[in-house]
Amino acid sequence: MADVRTLWWSGDSLVLLNQTLLPWEERDVSCKDVNSLVESIQNLVVRGAPALGAVGAYGVALALIQQAREGWDSDRLHAEIVRIREARPTAVNLAWGVDRALTAVPGGLPAVLGVAEDIVAEDDRANRILSSIGADYVMSRLDRRPLRILTHCNAGSLATTGWGTALGIVRELHKRDAVELVYVDETRPLLQGARLTSWELSRYGIRHVVQIDSAASSTILRGLVDFAVIGADRIALNGDTANKIGSVGIALACHYVGVPFIVAAPTSTIDSSIETGVDIPIEYRDPDEVLMHRDWDGRGSTVEGANPAFDVTPASLISAIVTEQGLFEPDGGTSIRSLLGTEHV
Amino acid sequence: MADVRTLWWSGDSLVLLNQTLLPWEERDVSCKDVNSLVESIQNLVVRGAPALGAVGAYGVALALIQQAREGWDSDRLHAEIVRIREARPTAVNLAWGVDRALTAVPGGLPAVLGVAEDIVAEDDRANRILSSIGADYVMSRLDRRPLRILTHCNAGSLATTGWGTALGIVRELHKRDAVELVYVDETRPLLQGARLTSWELSRYGIRHVVQIDSAASSTILRGLVDFAVIGADRIALNGDTANKIGSVGIALACHYVGVPFIVAAPTSTIDSSIETGVDIPIEYRDPDEVLMHRDWDGRGSTVEGANPAFDVTPASLISAIVTEQGLFEPDGGTSIRSLLGTEHV
Repeated sequence: MADVRTLWWSGDSLVLLNQTLLPWEERDVSCKDVNSLVESIQNLVVRGAPALGAVGAYGVALALIQQAREGWDSDRLHAEIVRIREARPTAVNLAWGVDRALTAVPGGLPAVLGVAEDIVAEDDRANRILSSIGADYVMSRLDRRPLRILTHCNAGSLATTGWGTALGIVRELHKRDAVELVYVDETRPLLQGARLTSWELSRYGIRHVVQIDSAASSTILRGLVDFAVIGADRIALNGDTANKIGSVGIALACHYVGVPFIVAAPTSTIDSSIETGVDIPIEYRDPDEVLMHRDWDGRGSTVEGANPAFDVTPASLISAIVTEQGLFEPDGGTSIRSLLGTEHV
Repeated sequence: MADVRTLWWSGDSLVLLNQTLLPWEERDVSCKDVNSLVESIQNLVVRGAPALGAVGAYGVALALIQQAREGWDSDRLHAEIVRIREARPTAVNLAWGVDRALTAVPGGLPAVLGVAEDIVAEDDRANRILSSIGADYVMSRLDRRPLRILTHCNAGSLATTGWGTALGIVRELHKRDAVELVYVDETRPLLQGARLTSWELSRYGIRHVVQIDSAASSTILRGLVDFAVIGADRIALNGDTANKIGSVGIALACHYVGVPFIVAAPTSTIDSSIETGVDIPIEYRDPDEVLMHRDWDGRGSTVEGANPAFDVTPASLISAIVTEQGLFEPDGGTSIRSLLGTEHV
């Protein structure tokens, strides 16, 4: 089975696999300017915190090309890069990728593209290392073989530029013949689980069950899950983790029955400027994504839609945060600072 | 605003407000035989445990009429009544309504219809009493005014033959001017919250917010909810409660932050033959209700759908079970047996 290719540079464009059309259609989108890139980010043509790191860096390259083409002054260039950087508020990786590429701007377009390619290569490498660390961890902690896993949203190849994070651990365990079944939450409102994770797992030949999001707690309480693993959009220094809305409910159920709840993310997801999850901005999306099912006359009078895209899981509910630089157990003795290379702290 | 009319007898038919079409269309379904009734129950034209109690009793009346029309022997009559009784496995009220009507069969059709009408009248009365008890309870326990409430699925007039249970408490609090806002979980896969509860609250003029189911935990952890209230499909003697899938996740979040989690149900929902929730049968519905979003070629190889319609909340996570015969606090000293009249125990 071919690996999934989420994004790549081609000539003067960033090409994205359009994730809004999966699993029904595999079609690319070619971004040649900042507008089309920002639109693609906001419409979730590309999503997933680690992937957005690379997108941020490539976005700086696109802005430089557009500057040359359209004669922008440096203020305009700056403003356009800020638009990319702030296109989605919760994932810290987007800003991180932009900022890292900005350091290369004095070297011109080739230097910026070099940074973006480095991010892609590092992300794939980090994914594979953390997947191996995570697989070792669950195999050492859990006796049952093969394992029954629960995941939420999509933290696979489609969310990264490589092997995947949470799904990377699943894939690594599958390579080791240790996966019985994966419970995939459909992940309303945009169904990244039912659409994207199921599409990936089907390609990898991994048996899985799609369930509604609110079935997760019950599936866990009924003893059907050996561990849960999710990705992350932003991790505070104390280990509080922002991830797709619904994550904290899974953590509560795992905590209640004593099943490991694991966060898998590259260290680029750690925001060393934030001590706790209270300071993580939560993105609210269009309420119509929640209300679209009810296009009726009575709507509007006393009803609103609430559509937070993320929630924050307190560190105390997380068994382990698995990164490419090692594993952090929030209840244990180590600090998440100790995992980080100096460039992050 | 007019009250909602969920079901009524007309001539020789049971008429049901078709809940599958709400909120877009208000259209009735007229059931003249057992087949159409069983189909309406299984397709959720009518649903909600207390409503199903009345439906069960009227179903016996329909079976008697059909027996006279088609010349069934008593074996056939028995088999048809069993089909009604077992049309949905989790709600105990359906079987309870059938069984209660069966005691009147020696008195003929008028006696059976009399039982059904009694059930309707008692249900409405029980709803109003328990709503008052529940409203007193939350107002005595919680200082904040007005209150912010979270509910799941639909336990309103549409789920009963009268005032409503969980939504009955909300309506009673609204009458007392004590409701700020109701968070309504959309309740996948069939959206009884987004469709039915929102439709009812709009009629009652109660301000509410529809959110995806997996947002509930986060909404509670963020301190936005003063208490949660749900209905019940079956309650075991120790207080373990089966209700719409997703309920136990709400209970876990309420327990974590110390917010009351209240179950509102008439005593007909208590199954005195069952000691704990382990023995409550859980209905699984068609997996296509979960997989329908993904009609694509890759489907089928390694993917299944899991579609449990209910979960069981352990009594230890429930602050109070509110019935028309009083209030049961599973952590307190009273036993749920003490609430029940002798006919239930």
